[in-house]
Amino acid sequence: MDTELIDQLVVKNDKKIIFLIMDGLGGLPPEGGTKTELETAATPNMDRLAVLGTCGLLDPVGYGITPGSGPAHFALFGYDPVKLNVGRGLLSAAGLGFPMAAGDLYMRANFATLDKKGLITDRRAGRLATDKNELLCKKLQNDIRLSSAKEVFFLTEKEHRALVVLRGGTWSEQITETDPQKTGLPPAEAQALIPEAASTAVAVNELTGKVIQALSGEDKANSMLLRGYAQYQLFPSMVDRFGLNPLAVAGYPMYKGIARLLGMTIAPDTETIEDEIKMLCAKYKDYDYFFMHIKATDSRGEDGKFDDKVKVIEKIDSLLPQVCALNPDVLVITGDHSTPAAMSGHSWHPVPVLLSAKNCRPDGATSFGEGVCIGGGLGRMPMKYLMGVALAHAGKLQKFGA
Amino acid sequence: MDTELIDQLVVKNDKKIIFLIMDGLGGLPPEGGTKTELETAATPNMDRLAVLGTCGLLDPVGYGITPGSGPAHFALFGYDPVKLNVGRGLLSAAGLGFPMAAGDLYMRANFATLDKKGLITDRRAGRLATDKNELLCKKLQNDIRLSSAKEVFFLTEKEHRALVVLRGGTWSEQITETDPQKTGLPPAEAQALIPEAASTAVAVNELTGKVIQALSGEDKANSMLLRGYAQYQLFPSMVDRFGLNPLAVAGYPMYKGIARLLGMTIAPDTETIEDEIKMLCAKYKDYDYFFMHIKATDSRGEDGKFDDKVKVIEKIDSLLPQVCALNPDVLVITGDHSTPAAMSGHSWHPVPVLLSAKNCRPDGATSFGEGVCIGGGLGRMPMKYLMGVALAHAGKLQKFGA
Repeated sequence: MDTELIDQLVVKNDKKIIFLIMDGLGGLPPEGGTKTELETAATPNMDRLAVLGTCGLLDPVGYGITPGSGPAHFALFGYDPVKLNVGRGLLSAAGLGFPMAAGDLYMRANFATLDKKGLITDRRAGRLATDKNELLCKKLQNDIRLSSAKEVFFLTEKEHRALVVLRGGTWSEQITETDPQKTGLPPAEAQALIPEAASTAVAVNELTGKVIQALSGEDKANSMLLRGYAQYQLFPSMVDRFGLNPLAVAGYPMYKGIARLLGMTIAPDTETIEDEIKMLCAKYKDYDYFFMHIKATDSRGEDGKFDDKVKVIEKIDSLLPQVCALNPDVLVITGDHSTPAAMSGHSWHPVPVLLSAKNCRPDGATSFGEGVCIGGGLGRMPMKYLMGVALAHAGKLQKFGA
Repeated sequence: MDTELIDQLVVKNDKKIIFLIMDGLGGLPPEGGTKTELETAATPNMDRLAVLGTCGLLDPVGYGITPGSGPAHFALFGYDPVKLNVGRGLLSAAGLGFPMAAGDLYMRANFATLDKKGLITDRRAGRLATDKNELLCKKLQNDIRLSSAKEVFFLTEKEHRALVVLRGGTWSEQITETDPQKTGLPPAEAQALIPEAASTAVAVNELTGKVIQALSGEDKANSMLLRGYAQYQLFPSMVDRFGLNPLAVAGYPMYKGIARLLGMTIAPDTETIEDEIKMLCAKYKDYDYFFMHIKATDSRGEDGKFDDKVKVIEKIDSLLPQVCALNPDVLVITGDHSTPAAMSGHSWHPVPVLLSAKNCRPDGATSFGEGVCIGGGLGRMPMKYLMGVALAHAGKLQKFGA
């Protein structure tokens, strides 16, 4: 079955679905231990939901595949993450709210440091301050004109990261990156991987040369490395596909970007998890699907901080009664992928999921954790089918066939 | 893997397979309860089979998809239910044993009541008596000639339901239904959804008009509403695909229809579950695959009668020793989909399955029920692969590759 089958079966109703996403939720026991972060955390509220709900394990992309945040979130929202593997540049552009248009080429850029021989000494320019990044992007925007593209845009993301957009030209994503991924080498020349990409390679190389020229007075941020090429692409929205009126409550540009690409309304920015939940409650009556994204679980996992990740999960559990008080028809609690503190990074391990709804079939689970989820009623399933299961429990899918 | 892979591996032998299908078997606990209908029922005989057999959960179409009876049965018989999603009219025609031919268009018809303004007051004509339906179909068969089709056939199904067949024309299924699905409106005009369907829409609208004319003397059944359009379609039979000599023991036209479409022989009609089992025993030596269909589980589920569904399951269990006494090489007990009494309708929940055979790998199950099936040895699998598993246990599939 393709994920598109559910599109044909959608019916609208006023039932409400909440996806509470703890980024990087799935974990591993610490060395010598037996319990993961989620299993170690005291989560009385999630455990209570597990009793009446249905648990399971989700594979974001496939067996053994470690997903980036982009594919993992596409899967969460019912999109095939392999078919929709888009360049990171597009996600950055969406996340920054850049007014995208057909014919754009988006690239992720790192400010980097070159020595006098033109060899890279720091691929992140000493993790540049964001305000310095802003000054430099303004300078580049003023100074640089390309003969190979009508327009070029420089936008600050955060620290050393920026977005560069080429507009007015015939672009292809099929060129090599200019980031050689190590120091001691010069920025790589972009090469066309297919004949049609020749003019894109020319433009990217012209861009790299002019950036180095314009930044020659800087001691740290005196060049840019480019990657994550992505052409403009229009996605079938969650509004059109599932008949939903979806709201994203998410702090980070990347997640807001994906949400925006898929047609979600973006709630105003919030600082803390408490604020995110307050925002959810404040907006609850106006939407019927809610994507609540919590980043801290992933960040603590990336930092290798087992105990800190446990604490974040416990904090979210303590706030959960506020979410339950909204009495959503379907509440899904899961992650986009695993980020075990023991690995300090994303991993391929399947992600625990808990679905709570009136018409759930109970599965004997009495707590929420990876071990329990192995025997859960949802079984182990591709993440891209989760949205269909949630829609079904909300009565939003008609019968297939007579 | 496609379901067609098994076709290439089939070898014939004299081993026998029984599929005992309790329609709508899968269930949910009643409000406040913890056990489903199957888990509540006392089923000592099924439980005994579960000890030596292998259990699991089947998804008829896919995660979250609620199937109609047609797709669910195609999946049971090893056919991809999405690729083979056929109009209900074809299933009706097959069920009635209508001599189908290439170039036919099949439609399901409801006799309905119009008021003097031509607005529908009853979409089922007061659930017309079947013998009255037969009289009216004869009258329509005598009276009606269409300019847009060479031949038209009217056949009684049951109560207010009939089958209408157009023959001699170029037909398309891509037209809208004439049943507006509510009262207070006139019958809808059939509209072509693609240009090639224009002549079909013309024929259906001519038909509707002439039926209303012909039935103008009737007070209740004075019109017909049309839907479930289906063109003639030839299916690869179970005989050709699996080398089986299959028999269907099924009471309802729909299920006999599907069985006939797939090349099964249809056993003479029976009235009760006891009679069905007697029929199975009487015919056992002449066939090597048996589809035994029991409708009552689904009907009680549709009616929302938890306890009555439990009783039907218990009754079937009490008759099971007669089936076991035949000593089939493979006995599969399952449903086509879930019909939880708590939902009074079909649902997307996966269906419990029990497979008993000498070469089963036991899985520790000691009873037959949804909860136990979660941890069963078959795991959770797409229903369309069940037939391959049954053939394998019957020694009817060769090794794949050297």
